[in-house]
Amino acid sequence: MLIRPKAGILDPQGLAVERALPALGFGGVREVHVGRLIELEVADVAQLPQMCEQLLANPLIEDYEIIAPA
Amino acid sequence: MLIRPKAGILDPQGLAVERALPALGFGGVREVHVGRLIELEVADVAQLPQMCEQLLANPLIEDYEIIAPA
Repeated sequence: MLIRPKAGILDPQGLAVERALPALGFGGVREVHVGRLIELEVADVAQLPQMCEQLLANPLIEDYEIIAPA
Repeated sequence: MLIRPKAGILDPQGLAVERALPALGFGGVREVHVGRLIELEVADVAQLPQMCEQLLANPLIEDYEIIAPA
């Protein structure tokens, strides 16, 4: 699952990275957003949305995306 | 970029999730790993590996994967 800060919600980690990169000499960086990557094996993939809602993401401030392995 | 704990390195967030899910009634969950998702716009994608090495990932304990937008 990919967990991202919702659009319009303050993303302090993203801001920190966006400010730190130019100081290290990396220019031209914009729109930095930091979220979480959660990988797991589960018997029943139908449970995943509820897992995200109840534990893995904070639905008030985060969106989640469920990706099946290729 | 996707940042993952290296195989064999302790992943306390993954362990915490793996223990919490059964307590919430979600069974059959294994191999939970928690990493980071970093999304950004950059002028020169050739800079990305060095950004990961120097700031975004800890190369001692994490691997990174760079994914171009579809």
